[in-house]
Amino acid sequence: MTTKRNVLFIMCDQLRYDYLGVSGHPRLKTPNIDALAQRGVRFVNAYVQSTICGPSRMSTYTGRYVRSHGSTWNGIPLRVGEPTLGDHLKEIGVRNVLVGKTHMVPDREGMARLGIVPDSLIGVHVSQCGFEPYERDDGLHPDGPYDPAPDYDAYLRSQGFDADNPWEVWANSAEGGDGELLSGWLLSHADKPARVPDEHSETPYITRRAIEFIGEAEADGRPWCLHLSYIKPHWPYIVPAPYHDRYGVDDVLPVVRSDRERQHPHPIFAEFQHERVSQAFSRPGVRERVIPAYMGLIEQIDDQLGLLFAYLDERGLTDDTLIVFTSDHGDYLGDHWLGEKQMFHDVSVKVPLIVVDPSPAADATRGTVSEVLVEQIDLAPTFLDYFGGRPKPHILEGRSLLPLLRGERVENWRSYVFSEYDYALDRARIKLGTPVPDCRLTMVADGRWKAVFVEGFRPMLFDLDNDPHEFDDLGDSEDHAEVRQRLSDAFFAWARRPRSRITRSDEAIAAKDDAQRAYDRNIESGVLIGYWDETELAEERAKRARYLASRRPE
Amino acid sequence: MTTKRNVLFIMCDQLRYDYLGVSGHPRLKTPNIDALAQRGVRFVNAYVQSTICGPSRMSTYTGRYVRSHGSTWNGIPLRVGEPTLGDHLKEIGVRNVLVGKTHMVPDREGMARLGIVPDSLIGVHVSQCGFEPYERDDGLHPDGPYDPAPDYDAYLRSQGFDADNPWEVWANSAEGGDGELLSGWLLSHADKPARVPDEHSETPYITRRAIEFIGEAEADGRPWCLHLSYIKPHWPYIVPAPYHDRYGVDDVLPVVRSDRERQHPHPIFAEFQHERVSQAFSRPGVRERVIPAYMGLIEQIDDQLGLLFAYLDERGLTDDTLIVFTSDHGDYLGDHWLGEKQMFHDVSVKVPLIVVDPSPAADATRGTVSEVLVEQIDLAPTFLDYFGGRPKPHILEGRSLLPLLRGERVENWRSYVFSEYDYALDRARIKLGTPVPDCRLTMVADGRWKAVFVEGFRPMLFDLDNDPHEFDDLGDSEDHAEVRQRLSDAFFAWARRPRSRITRSDEAIAAKDDAQRAYDRNIESGVLIGYWDETELAEERAKRARYLASRRPE
Repeated sequence: MTTKRNVLFIMCDQLRYDYLGVSGHPRLKTPNIDALAQRGVRFVNAYVQSTICGPSRMSTYTGRYVRSHGSTWNGIPLRVGEPTLGDHLKEIGVRNVLVGKTHMVPDREGMARLGIVPDSLIGVHVSQCGFEPYERDDGLHPDGPYDPAPDYDAYLRSQGFDADNPWEVWANSAEGGDGELLSGWLLSHADKPARVPDEHSETPYITRRAIEFIGEAEADGRPWCLHLSYIKPHWPYIVPAPYHDRYGVDDVLPVVRSDRERQHPHPIFAEFQHERVSQAFSRPGVRERVIPAYMGLIEQIDDQLGLLFAYLDERGLTDDTLIVFTSDHGDYLGDHWLGEKQMFHDVSVKVPLIVVDPSPAADATRGTVSEVLVEQIDLAPTFLDYFGGRPKPHILEGRSLLPLLRGERVENWRSYVFSEYDYALDRARIKLGTPVPDCRLTMVADGRWKAVFVEGFRPMLFDLDNDPHEFDDLGDSEDHAEVRQRLSDAFFAWARRPRSRITRSDEAIAAKDDAQRAYDRNIESGVLIGYWDETELAEERAKRARYLASRRPE
Repeated sequence: MTTKRNVLFIMCDQLRYDYLGVSGHPRLKTPNIDALAQRGVRFVNAYVQSTICGPSRMSTYTGRYVRSHGSTWNGIPLRVGEPTLGDHLKEIGVRNVLVGKTHMVPDREGMARLGIVPDSLIGVHVSQCGFEPYERDDGLHPDGPYDPAPDYDAYLRSQGFDADNPWEVWANSAEGGDGELLSGWLLSHADKPARVPDEHSETPYITRRAIEFIGEAEADGRPWCLHLSYIKPHWPYIVPAPYHDRYGVDDVLPVVRSDRERQHPHPIFAEFQHERVSQAFSRPGVRERVIPAYMGLIEQIDDQLGLLFAYLDERGLTDDTLIVFTSDHGDYLGDHWLGEKQMFHDVSVKVPLIVVDPSPAADATRGTVSEVLVEQIDLAPTFLDYFGGRPKPHILEGRSLLPLLRGERVENWRSYVFSEYDYALDRARIKLGTPVPDCRLTMVADGRWKAVFVEGFRPMLFDLDNDPHEFDDLGDSEDHAEVRQRLSDAFFAWARRPRSRITRSDEAIAAKDDAQRAYDRNIESGVLIGYWDETELAEERAKRARYLASRRPE
């Protein structure tokens, strides 16, 4: 590396691609994110590799598809030894630092098998998905056995918000007229302010921790990739004042759903429509109660990012720092008769993605919008590329976005994007009677068409040009057999080519091709395959000698 | 486990399925192996998962397809953390012990990343593919940087066979009339005896080491799985007296090849026909020189197995020991205009497989022949099953053979077998200009038809019923489009279902289905998704309470 470089990798949780000012939301105010888009490229076809937190993030942090890293659902550990962005950056002397959420669950059995002590330096690296956990806050800390207490709890207590679980009781609850606690998990309370004042709520706290890290890193001197990973606007849908009151019923966009979607839905789609959360969001009044809070949470993030960007300016870091703003998946919020995110409609599988490359080479693309098909697994190779690391296509299944950001001519960009979902841990498996290993959904999309292949069932198919709201499932339309076949062929081509040979690079394999062309390289190892006698062997050795002589400098 | 049980897992290297008396070779004498077949089941459709040593063995030792474990070629390390048979047996207190060859190459980079010291207990376990290396002898120790010196070298020296490399100079060389060394690597010397006497050659040495282990294991008392892994009849094709003289030109079977195979061969087949070793074996006189040595090496193994089986009898172990006899792949020996083994004709991809289950339950199948489609990845689950371990279908992609051995009714046995070969490290890649990640060959066979899918080229197809010698490639025959499609569909179905979620078992995923049917299990963790208010939540909590009450004993 010739110049100082850093990466600020900002991720929201459950933020829809269309809930930003810059992506066209008519009411939501996100001036700082909008301004960021003016400084970089906004990718409008950015897809996550799975539509729930854990597997989506594991793909982003490893640069590999879900079927490659194998952490197919929330809470399923990432196997020990699965290479992460942190491993690749470590090799080139870059710190990979976490402030916020990863949803990583360590593979304790795998670590035990390998004798790795969880709280050793390497144990922490493995347990934290390759991140140096400056501040780990997975954001969900309800009463129960869910997650260990975050440092944020201690912070709240230190500020006088005392409780066994201040995250639950202060940051994610409201207060009733008689001082009673009203849980922020319950949708009916989404219109009330959280009990904690804005400055002590999670988003500002996490932002300050990021700023503290950046300050400390100046003295340290090593380049860094900082993953600033907000839990919000994810559940619980509750936000402190004044954000709880910034938006109202009039600011809620009309729901995007059609009665046609309930008439003959695909069996898996039908099951998710039956889920409690989907039924809740389909009832009158629920969206109107929840969405203003969702929007408030986003505006709060935007305000905090304003402070963070100002700090980068102040410290003179803006010109050295590649900034990414994105999310791990969207949120149905009642669209398509669904809540949560487990299917592959655009509102779930597409995410906002803004990338600001500070290099002068990227000046020509600033403020532009790119419709290129991007996958979230492109981020890890992008960061590696930005820091000057060598590409690792035998491990990283995504591609660096830098050439796109720099307006370079890019050959053979992908024609299809893929996303996967494993419903083995959903009730849908039980209802449909699907065997556990078959609970595989695979989305294949080309920008115009989107197919979802469902092991054991017919596929779904949507025409995004003629049916941008994805109301009409053409999965069994006779007129569309050809399109389905083409997307199925793309799926097959993809499935045939997993990157599992992670211990030897393509480069290393091709490194001695010149020699291999000139003579049988096996003779160097003494493994002599196919030689009749000493004469034949001597001839081959002579070829080798001539080759080596030809390469010696004069 | 209620009774004492052991497994003796014998593997030869490069032994063709048809080079045994019991499999119909008219000249070759293998009475001990033939007798073994009388005590168990001989599987005549047993396929390896790759046609060269390294990946084939990594599949056998992990119970996983090559595309899953990723060690696609000789010398490509098995990634650290890839679970092995040894890991599964360790969990249930069974020693997994090696005497002989594995071809394992440790993932030193991966170990370093995880802070695993290679010569620590765990480092050795990882480096030895999950085996306790009682005697590691990878069998190839030519002069050169190939392999570290085996203990067998020290043994030879101790017996007076002194040299820098006694493996090369004594065990794998002959002597000329003037006392000059004649390398056993060179095919022209295959008719001469190795310099070392039979008793000190590799096969008897390794057999004695196995016997020593078995003797020591009696005192130890723990059950064991002993992998007795002969390097022979693999290259170098040289054998000590009297075996060098047991077979002659008259014992060599006619070559199996057709001029049709040279007329319009598939490009990848053509490239392997052009290889030096293929050209050598296609020249007159070469097979006649080499094959008698190959047969002598097999007879020597058979004699040694006679001693070993007698020892098991003597120690009273025969009734407790499941015995497997197999190989890691075959050898073309000039058939199909090829040498070595890189394609998928039966002589390469099929291996001998005899399994003797000593349990009374298996009495009914003794001496029978099974035509069931077996893959070498079935061995690891078979051993686990024999020792009473729980099945692990989320990791092990093969299936236990025990039900077949015990004549039980088996539902849904596989209809297709798969084998893979990565030619990225062959000259064929350079000649054909194939990109490194695309050098994938995948064989799909159903017992009657065999297709080989070649990324970037048309497939090959053989009709084993009407063309048992596999001379006629129907890969572009218009009449066979339907068969090719069916095999391609099977390939796709297989490619869609890799077992990569290795950190959570299918069983664990389905463990709480009853509860999940009765109420929303999320409420236990405090993550409350989709509840409008306290009433709804209380209703769900009541459902849970009723469920728990219903399960309480009266």
